[in-house]
Amino acid sequence: MALSKQTARIIKLPPVAIFAVGSEVVQGYIVNSNAAWLAREMAELGFEVVRHEAVRDDKDAIAARIRPCMPQGLLVIVSGGIGPTVDDMTRQAVSDALSRKLVLDKDDLARLHARYAAMGREFPQGSEIQCMRPEGARVVPNAHGTASCFLVKHGNGGVAVLPGVPREMKAVFADELRAALVADFGSPGKFYTRELKCFGMPESAIDIACRDLLTHANASAAILVDDAVIRLRWRVLAIDEAAAAVVLDPIADEARKRLGDVMFGTYEDSLEGVTVAACKHAGLTVALAESCTGGMIAHLLTSVPGSSDVLIESAVTYHNEAKIRRLGVKQATLDTHGAVSEPCVREMVEGIARESKADLCVATSGVAGPGGGTEDKPVGTVWLAAWFKGETRAWKLNVPGDRELVKWRSARTAINVLRITAQKGALPDKPAHWIVPP
Amino acid sequence: MALSKQTARIIKLPPVAIFAVGSEVVQGYIVNSNAAWLAREMAELGFEVVRHEAVRDDKDAIAARIRPCMPQGLLVIVSGGIGPTVDDMTRQAVSDALSRKLVLDKDDLARLHARYAAMGREFPQGSEIQCMRPEGARVVPNAHGTASCFLVKHGNGGVAVLPGVPREMKAVFADELRAALVADFGSPGKFYTRELKCFGMPESAIDIACRDLLTHANASAAILVDDAVIRLRWRVLAIDEAAAAVVLDPIADEARKRLGDVMFGTYEDSLEGVTVAACKHAGLTVALAESCTGGMIAHLLTSVPGSSDVLIESAVTYHNEAKIRRLGVKQATLDTHGAVSEPCVREMVEGIARESKADLCVATSGVAGPGGGTEDKPVGTVWLAAWFKGETRAWKLNVPGDRELVKWRSARTAINVLRITAQKGALPDKPAHWIVPP
Repeated sequence: MALSKQTARIIKLPPVAIFAVGSEVVQGYIVNSNAAWLAREMAELGFEVVRHEAVRDDKDAIAARIRPCMPQGLLVIVSGGIGPTVDDMTRQAVSDALSRKLVLDKDDLARLHARYAAMGREFPQGSEIQCMRPEGARVVPNAHGTASCFLVKHGNGGVAVLPGVPREMKAVFADELRAALVADFGSPGKFYTRELKCFGMPESAIDIACRDLLTHANASAAILVDDAVIRLRWRVLAIDEAAAAVVLDPIADEARKRLGDVMFGTYEDSLEGVTVAACKHAGLTVALAESCTGGMIAHLLTSVPGSSDVLIESAVTYHNEAKIRRLGVKQATLDTHGAVSEPCVREMVEGIARESKADLCVATSGVAGPGGGTEDKPVGTVWLAAWFKGETRAWKLNVPGDRELVKWRSARTAINVLRITAQKGALPDKPAHWIVPP
Repeated sequence: MALSKQTARIIKLPPVAIFAVGSEVVQGYIVNSNAAWLAREMAELGFEVVRHEAVRDDKDAIAARIRPCMPQGLLVIVSGGIGPTVDDMTRQAVSDALSRKLVLDKDDLARLHARYAAMGREFPQGSEIQCMRPEGARVVPNAHGTASCFLVKHGNGGVAVLPGVPREMKAVFADELRAALVADFGSPGKFYTRELKCFGMPESAIDIACRDLLTHANASAAILVDDAVIRLRWRVLAIDEAAAAVVLDPIADEARKRLGDVMFGTYEDSLEGVTVAACKHAGLTVALAESCTGGMIAHLLTSVPGSSDVLIESAVTYHNEAKIRRLGVKQATLDTHGAVSEPCVREMVEGIARESKADLCVATSGVAGPGGGTEDKPVGTVWLAAWFKGETRAWKLNVPGDRELVKWRSARTAINVLRITAQKGALPDKPAHWIVPP
C-alpha cells in the first residue's frame, strides 16, 4: 500500500530550455558544447530538455528571449555573460525579463573582496556587479571563479545562471546547482547507472564481445567513445539503489569478466588516476624516459594529486645528445638503428632504470609527425619499452592519427603498461590494440 | 563620385537565425557544431547571425519556433530532419510555419529514382517525401545524399533547409546554398576582422586599457577569454579589404602599442607555436627543468611540429633526489629553503643550463595542490626561473586555481618567458600578472 502511494506521487518538473549567452558563440567562434553537457545532466535529474538557444551579448535580446519562457513555465538554464566586463549582460537581462530588481548581495561582495585579498590582488574596479542578483534569487556559490551564480524560481519554472567557461560551468553545476535544483524543484533524482571504462581494445571489438549485454532488455546501454578511452554505460529508472542493483549488477559483473584487463575503472576514474593508485598500492616508484611523447606521460601522471609519492623523474630526452648524456644510449645504437628503434628504446628504459633506481620504468621513441616519416618508419611508428624487476620488454606500435593523437595514444599506452604491471605484478603481453605483432 | 554612389548603395540583408532540428542534439548526445560553422559562413556573406536554436523532432514544436521569425523578417537556416523516416519533420513544419502547401517536385522525384537506380537499390517506400517542398521554394540540389534541400523567400526573410549530417550539410552549403543566398538576397560579400591574442594581463585590465577601442563607433568588438589567453577582435562590413583596413588598422595598431609584450599573436597563433618560431628565428636552443609543471611545458612545446629543432631536453625532476642527481641542486638548499624556493629554482635552472648547454632555460618549482600547501607557501605558490646569456632571473608566482590550472598557468607563464626572451633578446621583467611583486 505504501509503495503504490509512493509511485502515485507524480512529480511535475518544468520543461527546460538551455541558453548560451555570448556573441562569440552566436558568431560561431566557439562551438556551444555547454548545451549538450547541460542537456545530459538535466536529463539525469529527470528534467525534459525541449530547446537550446544561443543569444548575443545584448541585454535586450537576452531578455526578449527569456521573457516568453516564463508564462510557458520553462526552467531556463543560462550559461555565460556573468563576468565583470562591459559586454557581460546576463544578470541585467534576467532581472529585466523577470521584472525583478537587481540587488547587491553584501555577503557575497565580502566573499569576493576576501577572494581577491587571498590572491594578493587589488579588487578590480566594477567587479561589484558580479555580486548582484534579481530579488528573491538564491545564490549558487562559485568556488572556481569570481562570478557567483544564481537560481530563481519564477511561476512554475525559473532561471538558473552559470558561468560560460566550460570548466567553470561544469564545476559550479556539479558542486552546487545540481543540489539546488533537486531542493527547489523536487527532482526525484533517480536514474541509476553502472559505467565501465576501457582502454586498449577498439570499440568494434568491445561491441562484439558485449553485444548481448549492450542490447539487454532491462537496461538501456550506451557506448561512449572519448578517443581511445571507451565507456560502457547501463542505465535504469528505479525506485532505489537496491532495485537498480538487481538489474544492473549482473550485467556489469558479466561485462567485467569478459573485458578483463581492458577495463580499468568506472565513472570518474581516469587511466592515470587508476595507475598512480595501483603503483602506490603496490609500493612501486616510477621513472620515465620520453622522446616522442615529449613530456606528456609525466604531465598526465602529475595531473593526479599525490603522484609525487610515485614519480621520481621523467627524462624528456628530445634531442639525441640528451639520450646519450642522460640515459647512456650508445652513439653506435643511434648510428646503426636510429632513435626510433627497439635497441634505442631498450637502452633508454634501462638507462632511466639505472639512473633513477625506480621500481618500474617506461620509455618511448617514435615519429609523431607531421614530418620525419620514412617508408620504413612512417608517421605513427612508436617504440615503447618497459623495465620491471630486471626484465625489459619492448613493443612496436603503429598509432593512427595526427601529431597530437600519436602523442596522446602513445602516452596512454605507456601508462596502461604501468597500470597492468602494478596491478598484476608482471609486465603485460599486449597493452593496446595498436601494437604490431612481432 | 563613383565612391559616394557605391557607399550609398545600402544592401539590407535579413538577420539570420540558425536552427538545428534533432532530438539527439537537444538531449545532448550530439554537440551542435553545425551552428558554429554556419554562423561563420553566413558572416562571411555579410549576414548578421542573431541567434541559434536547437529543437526536437516534433513538427509542431519546429513550426512554433519558426513561425514568429517570419514577421521579424528573419532568414532561418535549418539543418536536420529532412530524411525519409517518420521522425524527419522539418519539411512539414516549415510548410506549416509559412502556411504554404507542401508540393511534390516531379523533376526532383525523377532525379531521386535515378539515384537509387544508379546505386542498384530499390526505391524505398515513402521516399517521395524527400522531394516535397513548400510552394514557391527553390530547390537546392544535394549531390551528397538523397534528401534535396530548399530555399524559400518569405516576406523580408525566409527559410533555407539543409541536411543535418555535418559533412553533407557543409557540402550542400558550399556547392549550392551559398550561391542561392547571394542570388536571392543580394549578399555583397564580406565582413573583415582583426584579432589580437594576449597573455599575461587579466581581462579586466585589458578592458580598461582598451575600453575606447573596444567601444569604437566604426567597428564592433569582442573580448574572448580562453582561460589565460585573451582574444580581442574587431569587425566591420566593408566593400573590400582596403576599405576595411582604413577603419581596422588604426584600431589594431593602437591596441598593439598599448598592449606591448602582452600581445603574442593573431588568429590561429598559439603561445607555444609563436614561442617555438621565435626561438628558431633567433637561433636559440631551449632546455627545461620542471618540478610542479610535471612535464607540461615540454608537452606543450613538443605539440608544435618542428619543436625538435629547438628543445634539447626537459628534466622533469619531480622527486628531490632527482633535482640533486640531475641538476646539481644542493641538499643544503633543499634542507634550508625547501624545493619551492628562489634558491632551489635558481640552482635548477643553472643546473639544466650547465648540463644541456642550451641557450635559454627555464625551471619551475611550486605547490600545485590540492595537498602540500602551508601558511608560508599556500597552494598556487610557484617559483619560476630563467637563464639566458649567463644571467639568472627568478619570479614568485601566486597562481589561482586547482591543480590542473596551477600547472597550466605556470607552464604557460614559463613559455611566455621563453617567447619574450627570444623576441627581445633579453629576459622579461614581468611575464604574467600573477607574479608577486618582490
